[in-house]
Amino acid sequence: MHILFCSVGRRCELLKDFRKTLGRDAKIVVTDNSEVAPAMAFANRAYQVPLITDPGYIPMILDICKKEEIHAVTTLIDPEIALLAEHREEFEALGVVVLAPYTETAKLCFNKYEMYQFLIRHGIHTIKTYGTYEEFLTAYEKGEILLPVFVKPRMGSGSVGARKIETLALLKQVTDADESLMIQELMTGEDLDADVYVDTVSHKPVAIFSKRKLSTTIGGANKTISFKDERLFDFVKEVLGTMEFNGPLDMDFFYQDGKYYLSEINPRFGGAYLHAYGAGVDFIKLIQENVKGNTNPEQIGDYEEDVVMMMYDSVVIRKKKEIEAAIVSL
Amino acid sequence: MHILFCSVGRRCELLKDFRKTLGRDAKIVVTDNSEVAPAMAFANRAYQVPLITDPGYIPMILDICKKEEIHAVTTLIDPEIALLAEHREEFEALGVVVLAPYTETAKLCFNKYEMYQFLIRHGIHTIKTYGTYEEFLTAYEKGEILLPVFVKPRMGSGSVGARKIETLALLKQVTDADESLMIQELMTGEDLDADVYVDTVSHKPVAIFSKRKLSTTIGGANKTISFKDERLFDFVKEVLGTMEFNGPLDMDFFYQDGKYYLSEINPRFGGAYLHAYGAGVDFIKLIQENVKGNTNPEQIGDYEEDVVMMMYDSVVIRKKKEIEAAIVSL
Repeated sequence: MHILFCSVGRRCELLKDFRKTLGRDAKIVVTDNSEVAPAMAFANRAYQVPLITDPGYIPMILDICKKEEIHAVTTLIDPEIALLAEHREEFEALGVVVLAPYTETAKLCFNKYEMYQFLIRHGIHTIKTYGTYEEFLTAYEKGEILLPVFVKPRMGSGSVGARKIETLALLKQVTDADESLMIQELMTGEDLDADVYVDTVSHKPVAIFSKRKLSTTIGGANKTISFKDERLFDFVKEVLGTMEFNGPLDMDFFYQDGKYYLSEINPRFGGAYLHAYGAGVDFIKLIQENVKGNTNPEQIGDYEEDVVMMMYDSVVIRKKKEIEAAIVSL
Repeated sequence: MHILFCSVGRRCELLKDFRKTLGRDAKIVVTDNSEVAPAMAFANRAYQVPLITDPGYIPMILDICKKEEIHAVTTLIDPEIALLAEHREEFEALGVVVLAPYTETAKLCFNKYEMYQFLIRHGIHTIKTYGTYEEFLTAYEKGEILLPVFVKPRMGSGSVGARKIETLALLKQVTDADESLMIQELMTGEDLDADVYVDTVSHKPVAIFSKRKLSTTIGGANKTISFKDERLFDFVKEVLGTMEFNGPLDMDFFYQDGKYYLSEINPRFGGAYLHAYGAGVDFIKLIQENVKGNTNPEQIGDYEEDVVMMMYDSVVIRKKKEIEAAIVSL
């Protein structure tokens, strides 16, 4: 299999997992805007590309697909997901499977407030969310929501800009200052997440791996432990049935008062997919079958509980000259 | 060599480097308060220990040294450095080299305001620092310091609690609310750092590796590039001549208006020592010689420029049962 990872950045371990499953014959091609993207060191070929907002960007990615005879393409950064989705037909015309959701779903995942409205329309348990201070105030005065609340940007990924707000006055001040913020109920339950693979042929979720944060007595490091719950698996299927995903994705949840609440969906390989892989949930084999045109049988929950993942910092060290020499030109 | 790493946490790559230099015959023993410390997976023996504030802590570490016939001990967390220093004689009575500075130096490094006063007394270029709002205000009114400034806790490590403050009113508010904060000149120059090894026999710095942050067009990831400057090496020697270090340490600097300014010293293996090791600056061999009672010849600047380090996330994955079974009991 020849696979292209766009905006590969620091995802070295993901590439190592691909190499482990696919073997030496696989061709791993990567791109990044920066030449100092550590994951380039684990690829067969690395291209330095313009920013994804550059008009020449997609034509260049398509050219790389042609030149490298790519079978599947995906991206590791959120703002690029909808871009790949929008150009799906051009990739498919070259025989390339696009491991990204269909356009509408891609856009929903990137705008958390629109996602909230969508989920509510479809009766899916999610976190109470308000698009403006006024909307929040109306609900607050009716007693539907309490302070403190959580504010976060409606676009964007991760926890950048997210914070807890204690008072109405401060809430007004921060939302006035930054219109991109939305207001959410402060969840106090356990946070969990699931890595899911949606088969690109059958369009059904065929693998789910769920894990929760491990409480630790010291340090705030990223440590998770696998668990299984049929109710969570059913909830995942209910959510995914309302949208059009394609390939790997990562879903965040809260578990509170005996119920699961969907928090957000990142429709790409999650940073902690490494845990699923290490516990034997191999999305890479599923991609391999899909690329051949085969559907994958359902293997949901096919892993052990109490498998622990502990993250740490690793490094790539290379001479500047070697880094420059390793970049391929089109 | 038998080496003990206290509070080993996530320092997996450091342990891998030790294994690489020392070979299979070396015994790497580690402790941590948490049983889910990923670096335990790279040790020969791992002990779960009480918090460093527990009265039984040091006796237990000494017992481990006896049982494991340890030759050298060090810690990977800042609050433990002075503790090891204070008990140096008990370790030395067991034939254990303590890779930590002598007590007074250890305390200075942990209290950044006392360090500032010490550096000023010794005529060493450092960043203007004020212990209280009143002290700052006096200097501000004389025009000796401008806003914005930087506040950070006088104790503690890393950048936790550090932030830029724009106005006098806010500065008064935050320093009133948190007396642990000190006020520093906002440095706009380049930040650099150096990994240094102070020979434990000759008490001289014998190896220095310096690197600067690499400017990147995208992402805030940790990327550094090696450089050499005799003026920086001379400055390092000047600083170290005023204190009593012993073993590995990490120094942070700013370079502004053609001058180096010392920012802080962490007298332990820095998180980015991996860069030095990858560029061939092997402190582990130096420790090995010191443990044998030999001095090391000076090898300052013995590395190439333009060697790049790029950090990424890696993981340890193990079953909970295996983690529990791997913990050794005293």
